[in-house]
Amino acid sequence: MHSDLTITDVRLTPVLVADPPLLNTQGVHQPYTPRLIVELVTADGVTGVGETYGDTKYLELARPFAERLKGRRVGDLNGLFSLADEVAVDASRVRDAVDVGGLRGVQSADKLRLSVLSAFEVACLDALGKALGLPVHVLLGGRVRDTVEYSAYLFYKWAGHPEGVAAEPDDWGAALDPAGVVEQARKFTERYGFTSFKLKGGVFPPDEEIAAVRALAQAFPGHPLRLDPNGAWSVETSVKVAEELGDVLEYLEDPALGTAAMAEVAARTRVPLATNMCVTTFAEIKEAFTRDAVQVVLSDHHYWGGLRNTQHLAAVCRTFGVGVSMHSNTHLGVSLAAMTHVASTVPNLHHACDSHYPWQAEDVLTERLTFQGGTVAVPDAPGLGVHLDRDRLAALHRRWLDDDGSLRDRDDAAAMRVADPGWQTPPTPRW
Amino acid sequence: MHSDLTITDVRLTPVLVADPPLLNTQGVHQPYTPRLIVELVTADGVTGVGETYGDTKYLELARPFAERLKGRRVGDLNGLFSLADEVAVDASRVRDAVDVGGLRGVQSADKLRLSVLSAFEVACLDALGKALGLPVHVLLGGRVRDTVEYSAYLFYKWAGHPEGVAAEPDDWGAALDPAGVVEQARKFTERYGFTSFKLKGGVFPPDEEIAAVRALAQAFPGHPLRLDPNGAWSVETSVKVAEELGDVLEYLEDPALGTAAMAEVAARTRVPLATNMCVTTFAEIKEAFTRDAVQVVLSDHHYWGGLRNTQHLAAVCRTFGVGVSMHSNTHLGVSLAAMTHVASTVPNLHHACDSHYPWQAEDVLTERLTFQGGTVAVPDAPGLGVHLDRDRLAALHRRWLDDDGSLRDRDDAAAMRVADPGWQTPPTPRW
Repeated sequence: MHSDLTITDVRLTPVLVADPPLLNTQGVHQPYTPRLIVELVTADGVTGVGETYGDTKYLELARPFAERLKGRRVGDLNGLFSLADEVAVDASRVRDAVDVGGLRGVQSADKLRLSVLSAFEVACLDALGKALGLPVHVLLGGRVRDTVEYSAYLFYKWAGHPEGVAAEPDDWGAALDPAGVVEQARKFTERYGFTSFKLKGGVFPPDEEIAAVRALAQAFPGHPLRLDPNGAWSVETSVKVAEELGDVLEYLEDPALGTAAMAEVAARTRVPLATNMCVTTFAEIKEAFTRDAVQVVLSDHHYWGGLRNTQHLAAVCRTFGVGVSMHSNTHLGVSLAAMTHVASTVPNLHHACDSHYPWQAEDVLTERLTFQGGTVAVPDAPGLGVHLDRDRLAALHRRWLDDDGSLRDRDDAAAMRVADPGWQTPPTPRW
Repeated sequence: MHSDLTITDVRLTPVLVADPPLLNTQGVHQPYTPRLIVELVTADGVTGVGETYGDTKYLELARPFAERLKGRRVGDLNGLFSLADEVAVDASRVRDAVDVGGLRGVQSADKLRLSVLSAFEVACLDALGKALGLPVHVLLGGRVRDTVEYSAYLFYKWAGHPEGVAAEPDDWGAALDPAGVVEQARKFTERYGFTSFKLKGGVFPPDEEIAAVRALAQAFPGHPLRLDPNGAWSVETSVKVAEELGDVLEYLEDPALGTAAMAEVAARTRVPLATNMCVTTFAEIKEAFTRDAVQVVLSDHHYWGGLRNTQHLAAVCRTFGVGVSMHSNTHLGVSLAAMTHVASTVPNLHHACDSHYPWQAEDVLTERLTFQGGTVAVPDAPGLGVHLDRDRLAALHRRWLDDDGSLRDRDDAAAMRVADPGWQTPPTPRW
């Protein structure tokens, strides 16, 4: 080996990132969302960076994980999984009932560990790539496309966070009806060139959301459209929406909660069902695939356990004739780079990936990744091809340090209660 | 990138390798078996080596594949698959009815291409590893074990090839009954330290093979035993053998042919069924796994399409709770090194791998890999960690050149007809 790739230091930097008031079925995004930036340093001084969820329960796992990493080599990626098994999970964290930060399916100790592991895996790949002079995609077997397509991730949103709440302003304006959604979509196309559109639903009664998708179809005829109510609907409602929008939907995402309900919906519609809630771990695949409950799995390299596990997931999907694309939550440029690298290597990625990135005006990079024609060019510089801006990182970390703890664990229902004190997490199904 | 990893030259060297008279249900191994050695050279003069089946149909595919490789980079592994799709397959080759060279399941154009691809993928990984100073297992995410366990691959065999046939002598002697099989197993343990035993069956009526396994169980109490008749039995016979040997078998390998028959056997016995005939491509997995037809898939990186595809297969098996281990056919040290590297990275490899390697006294390496305590130490030198002996390679190639064509396509039935002119490929099931 050309250089000593032993990990000698690991730095964990929790940050709070400005987030617009985006609405979902659980509530609204907080004005600031916690993320965790992981940095590795090798004996030769090569650094690697990764990113994952930043809530306290992730931080608590990341700390012992980081300690165990020291002395290992950045190329030992398969070994990270047995390392993860050694990291004890505080059971009370797993039972945290509502995963408002993600609306992303089952919570388990293993999944928490994998979410933390993913940041270290990405950081290892970044460091390894830098040390070898190879982009991360080559470490993943090489890209099969030069650019990765993303979709416009449309949200119902307020013009601003509730009065009195400290928050960064955004220039997107409100979107609370079909016209507002179409206007937002136009901004997305003007700014980034997206040609696929996904609307986060589950916010208003289904008829209103059907009208919004119809308006999108009229404004952007022939473009792929998706609607994602995060499991807010009953089987009957799901089937009804699928029937009404079947002619314009690329797929319907998580209309109902759980494999049984999804399987029933799938059996009653020809609209493909996508998911990042029903199938979010390898353990859930067998039943879901055997029952044909889902037609597209939306991978998220964070909770699937990294970029190489994402490739494994894609292989499983390929084997079973199930489509694959990518889920996204609030994230920074480090994760967008990671998503883009792995997405470029997956041959059976036939849908534009989701990304919240346009909603994040803040970043920790010296230079942000850009969307052109709705795509991100796959970086060909060594590693991830991104560079941390230490001042920006310090500023976002300072915000985290200064927080009284109320924002360190994302809670969209609590954020909603600031505007609507009587807000309760809706029952499932909501409609 | 430190060096120019563009492929500038590709060399294909077909060889004929001495093979003892090992018996299977189709006939007997030829005195010499065709293999193909692939070498890549990069612009910077780094070489990479791979190995695969050497029959004419593989050679015919390897030639256009090799031409297309020039100008590509050795790190572009995912791109090999679209390259393979461009290589036309002579349909008449695919219809070649009896795959006596392997008894390894369905023949398809895609599978032929993947078998050829695998040699180039391994050669690319070898070259990439050498250029980067990294062992192949690190390019596969790092080993999770330091040694890989292999099983003793026992065969019914004659003392020598039929009189008048040009062949290399071997010192294993005959094994045609339980005592002979046990004696062969003892030699394996003395020479290599193997502790698992697999008997290639389908040669004699089931009762004789049951007696041989019983004799092994008595001679090596508590050791994992396997019996593989290559699909020679009916469902009824398979179930009967499973019942009689259930207390000593680690698994029963391909007792009956096809997913339907295997599923029926599996449903009627608690002995796990392993396969390298029923599930040999990703396309066959869905039905077999859904029907619980097999409990262990024996991967073969040659026909599964390389080392990274082998990792994908292992991920699919892990996801569905199916075990994984490795199949082997007559092969040289290049392939043993490749098998060992990938096997070292697969966490869910819970059975000793098969290897014919001890049966091959000849090799193309300067230094052969060795078994100690039944295991091969995972090489930590750059690339595969093996070096071609050009004189040996030239000698085995000379044998291929000198052959009149009768041995260039392995045909165990034809080899059997030399001893027994009336030999016909047995019907299926044979018993």
